[in-house]
Amino acid sequence: MEYPSKLIENAVLELARLPGIGRKTALRLALHLLKAQTETTVSLAEALAKMRFDITYCRTCHSISDSEECGICANKLRDHGTVCVVSDVRDVIAIENTGQYQGVYHVLGGVISPIEGIGPADLNIDSLVSRAGADDSEIHEIILAISPTMEGDTTAFYLSRRLRDLPKVNLSTIARGIPMGGELEYADEITLGRSIVERQRQAR
Amino acid sequence: MEYPSKLIENAVLELARLPGIGRKTALRLALHLLKAQTETTVSLAEALAKMRFDITYCRTCHSISDSEECGICANKLRDHGTVCVVSDVRDVIAIENTGQYQGVYHVLGGVISPIEGIGPADLNIDSLVSRAGADDSEIHEIILAISPTMEGDTTAFYLSRRLRDLPKVNLSTIARGIPMGGELEYADEITLGRSIVERQRQAR
Repeated sequence: MEYPSKLIENAVLELARLPGIGRKTALRLALHLLKAQTETTVSLAEALAKMRFDITYCRTCHSISDSEECGICANKLRDHGTVCVVSDVRDVIAIENTGQYQGVYHVLGGVISPIEGIGPADLNIDSLVSRAGADDSEIHEIILAISPTMEGDTTAFYLSRRLRDLPKVNLSTIARGIPMGGELEYADEITLGRSIVERQRQAR
Repeated sequence: MEYPSKLIENAVLELARLPGIGRKTALRLALHLLKAQTETTVSLAEALAKMRFDITYCRTCHSISDSEECGICANKLRDHGTVCVVSDVRDVIAIENTGQYQGVYHVLGGVISPIEGIGPADLNIDSLVSRAGADDSEIHEIILAISPTMEGDTTAFYLSRRLRDLPKVNLSTIARGIPMGGELEYADEITLGRSIVERQRQAR
């Protein structure tokens, strides 16, 4: 595609490097910014740069934070004995939005993926093991909330091996099964099979 | 949605002001930038700000340009007697990509839309009339290439009224009809009807 201006071409190419944004969408975004007030572009550019430079990570759970300790780890009302292990900050936000979880988190920063060259040493796994194995640790349960992909399952398996020497800590995983509103006939066979094998006794 | 950091919340809110980008996509983009190298964010922010501040518009056709005269208007090899009137710079890029047009352009900067409060005076219409009506004008054809929406048709009608006092200038519109690869049975009635009424004699 030819662009009428080098400036717009640069902006389009930079925007198109973002995930899920192609050249056409990037052009639409660039032209939108050109039509909007100058402030719109300035505040967007400033917010992005400020986020990139000023953000810190919680020293305990490695979640994104504005200070050394994130709001969840600093909250005395949360259950610090239960740690939910997730691969990404997005998962923390998703679980927080359910309003169903009162424990704390541990963000791995990814999953083990030999293809992408990500090994256990590249993730926040050692800090989880030392956090759970510390003498003054009050952790009694670690929930593995990692997406059930090939890489996710590998990571979960590796974690369970690393954590099995901690007798005080119970390991659990989030429940798998038919999602709410899901139709049985459209569920894949593995999910449906597991939902039958791991059926839940109904309270009555 | 609650965000673990004010910095990321700001970036997400700014990104979500872009057209077609919701909060979830914005969060994905922000987290992508956090994971990528700092330079990615810096060059994106710089490209956007530079585009917004440094871009100019061609004094003749009002298209986006890096200088006072855009590359198309400055090109002596183009047919300066034929002017294609479009609402937006995106249309210029789209028509240029076809490689089928050798004339020049005139960018209106939008269409007449009473609902959005856009009247003829807000568009580059006066400059088109004076450009076509100038004593030294070599313009002999004006092609109205405006999307056939309610607002687009209103704009085209208004333009044809403003331009009818120029006897030397022929007015035309882009051909309407069944798009290439389109199935007749799925075409809407108006398009199909016009494609029959305005059928083209086949060369043989």
